[in-house]
Amino acid sequence: MKSSPNWKRKKGLRTWMNKDQIQAFEGRISRADRILIISHIRPDGDAVGSLIGLGLILEELGKEVNLVLEDGVPRVFHHLTGFEKVIREAVGIYDLVIVVDCSDIDRIGSVLDEYGEPDVNIDHHPTNTQFAQLNMVRDNAVATVEIIYDLVQALSLPVTLPIAEALLTGLLTDSLGFRTSNSSPRTLRIAAELQEMGANLQVLYRKAMLEKSLEAVKYWGQGLSRIQMENRLVWTSLNLEDRKAADYPGRDDADLINVLSRIRETDICLVLIEQTNGSVKVSWRAQPGFDVSKVATHFGGGGHKPAAGAEIRGDLARVQEEVLEETRKALSGTE
Amino acid sequence: MKSSPNWKRKKGLRTWMNKDQIQAFEGRISRADRILIISHIRPDGDAVGSLIGLGLILEELGKEVNLVLEDGVPRVFHHLTGFEKVIREAVGIYDLVIVVDCSDIDRIGSVLDEYGEPDVNIDHHPTNTQFAQLNMVRDNAVATVEIIYDLVQALSLPVTLPIAEALLTGLLTDSLGFRTSNSSPRTLRIAAELQEMGANLQVLYRKAMLEKSLEAVKYWGQGLSRIQMENRLVWTSLNLEDRKAADYPGRDDADLINVLSRIRETDICLVLIEQTNGSVKVSWRAQPGFDVSKVATHFGGGGHKPAAGAEIRGDLARVQEEVLEETRKALSGTE
Repeated sequence: MKSSPNWKRKKGLRTWMNKDQIQAFEGRISRADRILIISHIRPDGDAVGSLIGLGLILEELGKEVNLVLEDGVPRVFHHLTGFEKVIREAVGIYDLVIVVDCSDIDRIGSVLDEYGEPDVNIDHHPTNTQFAQLNMVRDNAVATVEIIYDLVQALSLPVTLPIAEALLTGLLTDSLGFRTSNSSPRTLRIAAELQEMGANLQVLYRKAMLEKSLEAVKYWGQGLSRIQMENRLVWTSLNLEDRKAADYPGRDDADLINVLSRIRETDICLVLIEQTNGSVKVSWRAQPGFDVSKVATHFGGGGHKPAAGAEIRGDLARVQEEVLEETRKALSGTE
Repeated sequence: MKSSPNWKRKKGLRTWMNKDQIQAFEGRISRADRILIISHIRPDGDAVGSLIGLGLILEELGKEVNLVLEDGVPRVFHHLTGFEKVIREAVGIYDLVIVVDCSDIDRIGSVLDEYGEPDVNIDHHPTNTQFAQLNMVRDNAVATVEIIYDLVQALSLPVTLPIAEALLTGLLTDSLGFRTSNSSPRTLRIAAELQEMGANLQVLYRKAMLEKSLEAVKYWGQGLSRIQMENRLVWTSLNLEDRKAADYPGRDDADLINVLSRIRETDICLVLIEQTNGSVKVSWRAQPGFDVSKVATHFGGGGHKPAAGAEIRGDLARVQEEVLEETRKALSGTE
């Protein structure tokens, strides 16, 4: 049988970082006894996973580590061993301050207000402002945990099961289960290695990404049963009575927008949520080739081409009319 | 910095098959000019992916190949190059008959009624009945495409982009996006290699697993807005009027059961769907530690511990009452 593979297979996992950065990081760690690690407000799985993952690694190396999130750890990550170590304020004096998964120093809240410039900045956002002395930023990484895994490999750092679980959680959540366009073969291979260290991908996936409260699912149902479509635009709205009827405690759409974005016949979808303060929260999603960030910006919000949001003053009916009018322009490409 | 990795890393991808089987397969292929490949009725992504993937590989080797699915290729796989080659009946004489992803010869429908025993059986189901002359069955593979990839590696078979896309589709769908308990590090590494061959994981994921029709999503909404809970049991039902109101053409629940199984507070969930023929279709899902296959069997259906189904004669209200009664036993472990 003839052999004719028409691709080049890449063997193994290579690290990306230059030796100077790795040595600088190693030097700073080895000289420090008391280390502060911080991540951003409204933390997601990559913020929590990077924070706990790196924190536990440094503890394994014998360091005293404080992990700080101004908003604490969201409920969906309370199964991670190490979440109980996370506090809300920095305490005392540190030899080393590391910020993970923050594009901008403002995103950590007020944690560093009485401290100086951070020493180390580990992040994957393309918009990172290089705010620290040592900036370990790689914007083609799917998640900050991927960069922390670079350090694990380059420096043969210890990885226990709780560390593997924290890192895999960051990979899974920021890649939406390995399906964002920047999720790479390397992402999958790192996940395979973390699985081999014992991390249960199935359980971590369910806990961090699938589980919903009964209230959230009822709330979805109300939004879905009232869905509307016009050309390739799909939308729905939820008012304050819906929220009360479903007993849903949040102010958000409980990820309803992601259910709408699964509809085959749609290019742009949006959800409008009436708020108690007389405004309406709007979330947009767009298929490749469309840009909803401009519409969100028009209403004082922001975001990216495929996903954006805004909070708009006014009553639901009027805001919906205005938002649909602007969104039709994005759909037809006239704006 | 000390090096203390506490796991064993496995390098590379190893094939599982013994040399005799590989040689036997190679021999049969090399002697054949006209090859028939078949998979099962009501084909899923692994059936379609195995069929098209192996078919295109053998065509690359210069063989004349017929691909047969009695039920044709479902719409969600029509983006796969090669789907247009799939026909519904075997035609003429073949040197070699290969059955993929079938545990049992009955599952192929009547395609082989005028032909003899199949030559080769490639499958991953634990219940495979070893019905062919050469049985290449590995039940720890997450999908049949994983076994076909074993052959690719062992025999250095050609893999073009359409082949990589077909194989990745089988991996993704049978592993539910890499999150079934039998999805292994090897599964992730194979996916990484297929990505490197150009297969777009994000697009394949969306097409085969996420996209829904507007009608299906509306139908979901009706089921979700009417959801009920009792202890850790969650259920809902859909009647014929709901189907009409949503304009939903199918007889199934449009995967509503998988939305219900995401509810955090539930151990068992079920959906009841009224049918036009005076019966009710029921689907169950259970969290680990619970067994819904017994309840389904009680009502003449079947399935596995975590997922089962049945079609039950009777009107919706009465069937619902009886089904809930039996399901409560499964929840309390008294059956």
